[in-house]
Amino acid sequence: MADSIALTLGHLAGHLGATLRGDPDKVVTGLATLQDAGPGQLSFLANAQYRRYLADCRAGAVLLTSADAEGYPGAALVVDNPYLAYARASHLFETRPQVTPGIHPSAVVDAEAEVHPSASIGAQVVIEAGVRIGAGVVIGAQSFIGARSCIGAGGRLAQRVTLGHDVIIGERVVIQPGAVIGGEGFGFANAKGVWEKIAQIGGVRIGDDVEIGANTTIDRGALSDTLIGNGVKLDNQIMIAHNVQIGDHTAMAGCCGISGSTKIGRHCMIAGGVGMVGHIEICDNAFITGMTMVTHSITEPGSYSSGTAVQPAADWRKSVARFRQLDKLARRLQQLEKRLDTVTPAGDTASDA
Amino acid sequence: MADSIALTLGHLAGHLGATLRGDPDKVVTGLATLQDAGPGQLSFLANAQYRRYLADCRAGAVLLTSADAEGYPGAALVVDNPYLAYARASHLFETRPQVTPGIHPSAVVDAEAEVHPSASIGAQVVIEAGVRIGAGVVIGAQSFIGARSCIGAGGRLAQRVTLGHDVIIGERVVIQPGAVIGGEGFGFANAKGVWEKIAQIGGVRIGDDVEIGANTTIDRGALSDTLIGNGVKLDNQIMIAHNVQIGDHTAMAGCCGISGSTKIGRHCMIAGGVGMVGHIEICDNAFITGMTMVTHSITEPGSYSSGTAVQPAADWRKSVARFRQLDKLARRLQQLEKRLDTVTPAGDTASDA
Amino acid sequence: MADSIALTLGHLAGHLGATLRGDPDKVVTGLATLQDAGPGQLSFLANAQYRRYLADCRAGAVLLTSADAEGYPGAALVVDNPYLAYARASHLFETRPQVTPGIHPSAVVDAEAEVHPSASIGAQVVIEAGVRIGAGVVIGAQSFIGARSCIGAGGRLAQRVTLGHDVIIGERVVIQPGAVIGGEGFGFANAKGVWEKIAQIGGVRIGDDVEIGANTTIDRGALSDTLIGNGVKLDNQIMIAHNVQIGDHTAMAGCCGISGSTKIGRHCMIAGGVGMVGHIEICDNAFITGMTMVTHSITEPGSYSSGTAVQPAADWRKSVARFRQLDKLARRLQQLEKRLDTVTPAGDTASDA
Repeated sequence: MADSIALTLGHLAGHLGATLRGDPDKVVTGLATLQDAGPGQLSFLANAQYRRYLADCRAGAVLLTSADAEGYPGAALVVDNPYLAYARASHLFETRPQVTPGIHPSAVVDAEAEVHPSASIGAQVVIEAGVRIGAGVVIGAQSFIGARSCIGAGGRLAQRVTLGHDVIIGERVVIQPGAVIGGEGFGFANAKGVWEKIAQIGGVRIGDDVEIGANTTIDRGALSDTLIGNGVKLDNQIMIAHNVQIGDHTAMAGCCGISGSTKIGRHCMIAGGVGMVGHIEICDNAFITGMTMVTHSITEPGSYSSGTAVQPAADWRKSVARFRQLDKLARRLQQLEKRLDTVTPAGDTASDA
Repeated sequence: MADSIALTLGHLAGHLGATLRGDPDKVVTGLATLQDAGPGQLSFLANAQYRRYLADCRAGAVLLTSADAEGYPGAALVVDNPYLAYARASHLFETRPQVTPGIHPSAVVDAEAEVHPSASIGAQVVIEAGVRIGAGVVIGAQSFIGARSCIGAGGRLAQRVTLGHDVIIGERVVIQPGAVIGGEGFGFANAKGVWEKIAQIGGVRIGDDVEIGANTTIDRGALSDTLIGNGVKLDNQIMIAHNVQIGDHTAMAGCCGISGSTKIGRHCMIAGGVGMVGHIEICDNAFITGMTMVTHSITEPGSYSSGTAVQPAADWRKSVARFRQLDKLARRLQQLEKRLDTVTPAGDTASDA
Repeated sequence: MADSIALTLGHLAGHLGATLRGDPDKVVTGLATLQDAGPGQLSFLANAQYRRYLADCRAGAVLLTSADAEGYPGAALVVDNPYLAYARASHLFETRPQVTPGIHPSAVVDAEAEVHPSASIGAQVVIEAGVRIGAGVVIGAQSFIGARSCIGAGGRLAQRVTLGHDVIIGERVVIQPGAVIGGEGFGFANAKGVWEKIAQIGGVRIGDDVEIGANTTIDRGALSDTLIGNGVKLDNQIMIAHNVQIGDHTAMAGCCGISGSTKIGRHCMIAGGVGMVGHIEICDNAFITGMTMVTHSITEPGSYSSGTAVQPAADWRKSVARFRQLDKLARRLQQLEKRLDTVTPAGDTASDA
């Protein structure tokens, strides 16, 4: 593992704005769950279902709400939101290797690219003409930055990230390995059965504080740009087609596929494996559960779903067979209702309903 | 953006075989939608639902059918198929950086590879022994071309494309970043619970005029080759397993997964997120809607679907619960029909149906 | 194709532990299916549905069970399990180029990395400090090995594989191109609508004899490590989120997505496109069919499924419309039962059921 980290509880309390209940000089050297944490580690209780682990917790200190801290005999860092405090503390224990400013000698950087002196360009990176790399940016080994693309200050590209030409990225954006931003969108016109390619002459614009997951692809626009708002978080292996727009602070889990020109609002949460057809709009604050097939626009905030959930295969086969008969079953039901009306009036059993 | 492009309407009319209604010396410098286009831009009307934007259109010229051109007062390039004309015009406004023939000094090219002098080999490309690269081929930075693979004339590989060994590619094929052609297929034999690898000794053969999307993977064959026909268009993040065959001019949108040895016909359209089991056949001219689970062969041309579409989650939960009961519900319905037969003959309400 | 291979049937029989019925000096130079094999090729019959091809088989020799060999007039290598024998024979016909030990001059290897002298490090590979590469390991061109990661003896990474820092890999592990092991997991805490990143300080640990497919991503753990057991086989474009655990000898086909902290047992078979929510457990020996949405833990071995299968789109639209009405239909059915009870007792038709 990385070089050891050692932080006093006093330092942590100051950093997190926490009220310390314990020895400020006590040292922790790592972070762990309530079950796993030892005396040298910091832990946290963010989910009520793990409260039962508090009694036997051996952690050096625990991030707790004041209510949870009351019954806890060990060292506590009392905060309003332990999960958020954990998020903020986690960066103190980062294991990622340090980088130093400068351009690795194996990198190929065009003479007409502007790289800020505080930026770090890794081994075998290729940077084309007209690129601008901001202050403090880290570009991991083997990444490619296409012509005229810009990366705002504080950005961090992991290894082997590919940005096509004319991709404009805001500040503090993090991109995981293998992501491709600015590939050509899937645009073809059909001429008597043969597909003719449409040049994809738009770019991609990405806001500040965005995160893009490993092997995720965001295509360049056909005419205007594909747009990713501020604070958007995209997990791995997501496919964002040309001219999609994603509103600020929307989060999307892995393996989603968003078709061309679809517009997703702000503060949406899209679970894993969701697919959306093209040219629809999803309003702000929509929550879409995993693997949902979104076939039309969503205009009201709230939760949305589709699909059927796992069953034993034998039961499932019966349901699936009946699913195919559903329309016939519904018609037979209607027929029965009519027949029964000839025998007994519908009102008869209404009081039982 | 890229260096400016300036084209006269006269030149465009000649290039597109269009009838010009307007000043042949008028210049356009870009392409945009009807809503966005300014006086210096060319636009097009290809979809009836956008006809309402024509009245206020500020474009320098518009690609129109003769019917649409009749009521339009501005400059028009009259064509039979405006979308196809737009496709052909789009390449005149391409923003991709120009490349020059030759091999970048950082590329590693085996002495036994044949690279046509007109080809362009980008920075940090690796080309193994026995490879043949045709006339005018462009290979983007950081791509890898495995032993004995061939790329036909006019091909264009974006950055960071990986071709394994023995991958034979036709002419004018475009491959987006991150695609992997010729990885080893998923073949294992089970020996008392332990999986033993089967060497994947087939290759991949790809026809002419194929496009392959970003991060798409096409596995090499187990014994014979995986086959992609002429004019096939594959979007991003598609997974093509070993020994799949795809017929000419079939188009497939993003995130599809095609299992081993499945054979897809010609001129099919497969929407995004479709999954197919292995060892089935899909006939020519099949159209499969998004996220469909294809569990058996399709033998008749036409449209095919599966899945259920998005609903509010509260409603969906009720439908899903009933889905699990479907077989029981169907049996109860049958029981009711029998009971009702004892009271009133089935024929009684037939006239109401 | 690769340099020619020539093996006598005698050699093959010895290698596979087969009983040879035929000339031990006869030579085969390749492997093919029963339909395709010519006189110079070895074939096999592993699936009863291909038995009909045996009569016209032109193969130089066929791997057969003793039962199938009885009626076959040609040369036969008689074995208990022809598919397993084929798997073992297939490696004799491998077409992958040979590699030689040593470090390619274009590779960038940190002075503090330990590379076994028998290992082969390809062109433009980057290896960071603290890495250990075991005996006989092959690292394909353009791969990246992050700080302190280890690759056990006999491993083979194809081209352009990315391992983040602190990724510990067992012996004989094969990784296909474009795979990313050790990207940062998708962890964020929400602070008044804004997502704050949680550092992902765990690593990834992978057992022996694992295979990982092209463009598959396995995220590093948030606190503790993501764990992949011995003998696990993962196909292409699979997404394994942080802190997932996969038990020994489980196989998973392409395009699956497994959410964070889910634990999958041993000897499971997960078909393509399956999605699993986070924080659930799948017991040993579960078999999950393609595209299943796994929304809860599975505690009993057996087969599991969800979804609905492909239908003609016109029929499907009717089923889908009724699916949305399912709860109402079920209530109408219940109402009918009650109404009918007032006319005829339920027992009346029980004998017909």
